[in-house]
Amino acid sequence: MADSMDLRHLVQDNGSKIILFVWDGLGGIQSGPEGKTELEAARTPHADRLVAQGCCGLLDPVYPGVTPGSGPGHLGLFGYDPREYQIGRGALEAVGVGFDFRHGDVAARLNFCTLDAKGRITDRRAGRIPNEESKLVVAKLAAAVKEVDGVEVLWAPVKEHRALLVLRGTDLGDGLEDTDPQKTGLAPLDVKVRDDSKESARTAAVAREVLARAMKAIAGETKANGILARGFAKRPHWPAMQERFGVRAAVVAGTPMYRGVAKLVGMDELPATNEVAKDVASLAAAWDKYDFFFIHYKHTDKAGEDGNFEAKVHYIEEADGALPALEHLSPDVLVVTADHSTPSAMKGHSWHPVPVLLWSKTARRDGVREFNEVACLRGGLGLRPSMHLMPLALAHAGRLAKFGA
Amino acid sequence: MADSMDLRHLVQDNGSKIILFVWDGLGGIQSGPEGKTELEAARTPHADRLVAQGCCGLLDPVYPGVTPGSGPGHLGLFGYDPREYQIGRGALEAVGVGFDFRHGDVAARLNFCTLDAKGRITDRRAGRIPNEESKLVVAKLAAAVKEVDGVEVLWAPVKEHRALLVLRGTDLGDGLEDTDPQKTGLAPLDVKVRDDSKESARTAAVAREVLARAMKAIAGETKANGILARGFAKRPHWPAMQERFGVRAAVVAGTPMYRGVAKLVGMDELPATNEVAKDVASLAAAWDKYDFFFIHYKHTDKAGEDGNFEAKVHYIEEADGALPALEHLSPDVLVVTADHSTPSAMKGHSWHPVPVLLWSKTARRDGVREFNEVACLRGGLGLRPSMHLMPLALAHAGRLAKFGA
Repeated sequence: MADSMDLRHLVQDNGSKIILFVWDGLGGIQSGPEGKTELEAARTPHADRLVAQGCCGLLDPVYPGVTPGSGPGHLGLFGYDPREYQIGRGALEAVGVGFDFRHGDVAARLNFCTLDAKGRITDRRAGRIPNEESKLVVAKLAAAVKEVDGVEVLWAPVKEHRALLVLRGTDLGDGLEDTDPQKTGLAPLDVKVRDDSKESARTAAVAREVLARAMKAIAGETKANGILARGFAKRPHWPAMQERFGVRAAVVAGTPMYRGVAKLVGMDELPATNEVAKDVASLAAAWDKYDFFFIHYKHTDKAGEDGNFEAKVHYIEEADGALPALEHLSPDVLVVTADHSTPSAMKGHSWHPVPVLLWSKTARRDGVREFNEVACLRGGLGLRPSMHLMPLALAHAGRLAKFGA
Repeated sequence: MADSMDLRHLVQDNGSKIILFVWDGLGGIQSGPEGKTELEAARTPHADRLVAQGCCGLLDPVYPGVTPGSGPGHLGLFGYDPREYQIGRGALEAVGVGFDFRHGDVAARLNFCTLDAKGRITDRRAGRIPNEESKLVVAKLAAAVKEVDGVEVLWAPVKEHRALLVLRGTDLGDGLEDTDPQKTGLAPLDVKVRDDSKESARTAAVAREVLARAMKAIAGETKANGILARGFAKRPHWPAMQERFGVRAAVVAGTPMYRGVAKLVGMDELPATNEVAKDVASLAAAWDKYDFFFIHYKHTDKAGEDGNFEAKVHYIEEADGALPALEHLSPDVLVVTADHSTPSAMKGHSWHPVPVLLWSKTARRDGVREFNEVACLRGGLGLRPSMHLMPLALAHAGRLAKFGA
């Protein structure tokens, strides 16, 4: 497992404040008109000033060469080793859609599928039915199956053919196999257990009944007349940031997925819109109530995923423009970094290390005066795993006591 | 244990190809006429071009300050933590001389020694008898002791006073102590067991009988009339590169030792000569059959061991000259690095980090335009353990799926 250190006996509360400003998917590779990365091409006067007054470096999000999903990418920044803190697919979906997912609940990702007259799958994605149609099917399910054997049954639409099933009750287990045979021409699988617990056995029986009733309820649908369930999982019991790092933490993120991951490590949710000026104002409004603020900027990642170099440059510049308002709050530590790279040339997440700048009065200046992937190679923070950022931020905030005499 | 990550659930096969070109002992220290390292002094236009188009850095072969033997040095590059994947001395010798060393075999390193009339050791290395004499002694042994208690007994010469003993049979154990008392004036020790297994007890009895008969057979020798056995060991059961990284891997190495280590991690052996042009041609001939190619260049290390700065420069230039032929194959990833440093000023292996260059279309260029130890300090790969190279190479080859959602 990771090179890590339990800091609980070192943390102290000195009233200082930390802002972690995540520009999602910030890192790139050289692909622009002048052979630059998006961040090299962007004009970022505020980040450049903060780098010059602070220090910088690069972070490996999960492990060298490993491309992180958004969950692992953020957990690393929050100081949680993404290899250790893994979340089941069902739980991630529940958290990702902003569902009120409670300890003890068991969630599964659902795919609507199309079954033929003999109950065999002909399309594992039910023709990717549009969201509106999917919502209607989910409404039918919610009306038809509300409770089985004392277990509350909750349904939520996600996107197209995808939906969420949550079982809520006492003594549920999540040692359940997927019912998706991963192939057409076969019937959905029975719900099997993969551990020996009574809880999983009971939950499997409930899930079996739930899915049987549910498929009866939608048997008349043309496309979405079947259901495949995957990734049964409970909400993980993770230690909160307050417990591990002694900070009252809050999240400002307009996209449910990022809020969800932040809430899994104990952050409180503040209002958010994905409009950066409003999100900064939301953070400012709660300034007195928290010690650590995670504010998320989404558009950079979206532009990278779309392969739109110019748009990514534009959004980087927009995010940069939000820095003065954050500085105006006089944080003790201000960090700008990313959960992962999303080079527009690759149209997706990548494993490339992400640039990081850390501004604080105790920063040891490293002579770097620009914030980009190449300049940060000469930065004082070096090249580190993302999970080393949080201890550094705490230290610069004066929140870590001396270790040993 | 190491900071590591199991990548098995992430590997995917996209048909891409990786070449790992190892310039053995490449790293140096400044000791040349102009205060340069061998690599700084060498003209390496091809490596310089690849660095400029790719990225670079430095690798710690085993652990900071630890000088690796050739086995650990290569295992790190193959993505196997050398601290975890250790191989018994007998097994290393068997592999190193290219012996057909099979699972279940037990190998031991032998030293011929000189015994006096009372059976006490007078010279632990039998006067370092020349290879030719040693071969004759081994031939006598091979003729005299072929089988004991159903166990096949195999002998092979190694070098001077060193030879190899391999026991082949069912249910053998390798929990056996050395018979070398490490001092003159004492008799060779009895073969003792160091675990409680039946297998080791039986193997000790066989080894005892083998050594007794063997020493009888060579009792008439003037110098090599005794045998000391060390490092009884089986071939380790290591997961193959195919299993861990999803690549069909092949080795082109003219020296048995390197082939042997590569075969321990499941590489197939391709013809090799230690003439670089021929070895590149051998690799090219198998291009369609493998995903990962390890090609070994020996002469740089030899020159370093000889303390010959100029020769090492010459051989670095020779290796550089082979790069265009490898590029011509259009690999997706081309890596040039070393298993360890062999500074000619030190006439031996050293712990100094080794330079590494990684060329691929997804490389984030770092602005470095020369391939040498100092320039690579500014490289985008940073300073990392060698075992992080393999995940990076796989990522750049598009062979690692996203981790988490």
